[in-house]
Amino acid sequence: MAFTFEKKVRFGEIDQAGIVYYPQVFNYYHLAMEDFFERAVGVPYPEVIKAWKVGFPTVHVEADFTQPLQYGDEISITLTVSKLGRSSVRMHYVVRRQDGRICAEAQLTTVCVDMDTFRSRHIPEAIRKVLQQHLDGGEPEQGALV
Amino acid sequence: MAFTFEKKVRFGEIDQAGIVYYPQVFNYYHLAMEDFFERAVGVPYPEVIKAWKVGFPTVHVEADFTQPLQYGDEISITLTVSKLGRSSVRMHYVVRRQDGRICAEAQLTTVCVDMDTFRSRHIPEAIRKVLQQHLDGGEPEQGALV
Amino acid sequence: MAFTFEKKVRFGEIDQAGIVYYPQVFNYYHLAMEDFFERAVGVPYPEVIKAWKVGFPTVHVEADFTQPLQYGDEISITLTVSKLGRSSVRMHYVVRRQDGRICAEAQLTTVCVDMDTFRSRHIPEAIRKVLQQHLDGGEPEQGALV
Amino acid sequence: MAFTFEKKVRFGEIDQAGIVYYPQVFNYYHLAMEDFFERAVGVPYPEVIKAWKVGFPTVHVEADFTQPLQYGDEISITLTVSKLGRSSVRMHYVVRRQDGRICAEAQLTTVCVDMDTFRSRHIPEAIRKVLQQHLDGGEPEQGALV
Repeated sequence: MAFTFEKKVRFGEIDQAGIVYYPQVFNYYHLAMEDFFERAVGVPYPEVIKAWKVGFPTVHVEADFTQPLQYGDEISITLTVSKLGRSSVRMHYVVRRQDGRICAEAQLTTVCVDMDTFRSRHIPEAIRKVLQQHLDGGEPEQGALV
Repeated sequence: MAFTFEKKVRFGEIDQAGIVYYPQVFNYYHLAMEDFFERAVGVPYPEVIKAWKVGFPTVHVEADFTQPLQYGDEISITLTVSKLGRSSVRMHYVVRRQDGRICAEAQLTTVCVDMDTFRSRHIPEAIRKVLQQHLDGGEPEQGALV
Repeated sequence: MAFTFEKKVRFGEIDQAGIVYYPQVFNYYHLAMEDFFERAVGVPYPEVIKAWKVGFPTVHVEADFTQPLQYGDEISITLTVSKLGRSSVRMHYVVRRQDGRICAEAQLTTVCVDMDTFRSRHIPEAIRKVLQQHLDGGEPEQGALV
Repeated sequence: MAFTFEKKVRFGEIDQAGIVYYPQVFNYYHLAMEDFFERAVGVPYPEVIKAWKVGFPTVHVEADFTQPLQYGDEISITLTVSKLGRSSVRMHYVVRRQDGRICAEAQLTTVCVDMDTFRSRHIPEAIRKVLQQHLDGGEPEQGALV
């Protein structure tokens, strides 16, 4: 099951080359994840961070930028889970433009940490359950990641 | 006495119009203030914030943008103090381009707060002393501001 | 008639003090204006910029920050027009938190320019008409501004 | 030969978790590259972009974040070239904190494009020469990349 986040490219996100400044796309992915927590997990990320004291900092990135994004583009970002470990999760993001064309893609590995110590910890069950539902096909690869 | 901060306009700071996205200029002013703490006050702002538990959030802004800044511009920002109260300070920033032309200007009022409570407090003496040295001419307007 | 734009405060918009980095609020105002063009004027700002070759750079700012915005806050920004000239417009933005409290406010003066020359020009009639509908009460102050 | 870029972590680059927002680190890498053009290539990137009409958009990213960066950290970023093709170049960035600890690392593949058409083109000779001098050891892997 894929989660979808929609966004319009905004004026201030454009760079000197007239396209979206690529570090902004990582911000887009983060916005999608925040929305995923709110709408799919049912617990807003601010609450996860502040009340649960749990966070998911990104530790590894593999990303492709195949088509420039421009001002006026309306994009949809799909988020699926490509690997789910006990204390880490790899999310797969795909950015599509209004014409359906894929413009960017990323595999982002995050580690579940205790926000007080920044030490890794098990993913809370309520979050894991929803991540599991978004595993992208095939055999769930649980446990493959530490 | 004016404090000067120098900066190059960077690729990612440009917007769809091909000029510096104006909210970025407020970031420039903040960079100048951080540099002021480091080089003029002699206490890096991270230390002021973290060790002293003192901060200077901006509460009032008056700003003009008179000339667009472009990629490749090398700017200098002068910082002077235009008003100094017991717990607030108004700083005056002027952005000049490499050709000497003024491109932007701002009066930014900040309040000295305790970082734990966000309540206003007296400006620490070591900081006030340096702010005073940078009052921009005429009669020092101390106390005029709460 | 006021235009309203809604936004959630996002993770990456927070600064070292644990509140929204104030230059970000000017970005919020810009997002509100972009949304205003799309939903109230009926012409997305990308089209105004690219097809009409018309832009509205900000030339003067007066802004107040009265209450810190925090991660998790859901804000609404109302936009009204406080002054409408032939080639410039001053917009009034008010940021309210979910509890109704006003957190920030700004008067932003923009000048209508030809995007090719960056020279000021008359505001296109289709845009002026909608700006007029959003004048904030009292006598329309048309023409008061150059 | 490695190129080194130094930077202080700034107030507005911190996120809700109290560390540098990771998309910002990609901005840091871009700042390092801009500085590389200015100081190592001897042609500022604004001139490469505007006068030469040549750009280097990022098309592939592999990145690790191993240690959180905090406000007050003074970092150095080393840039070397890990692969040099006719029209693409992969740069290797390593972020070290003031205590020498590696905090982040990335391999960023960029393609040389004509800025008017966004089509790939050969890397201009003056730039290639300097990239070659920064190949990171071993056999130069020239041509391995399209």
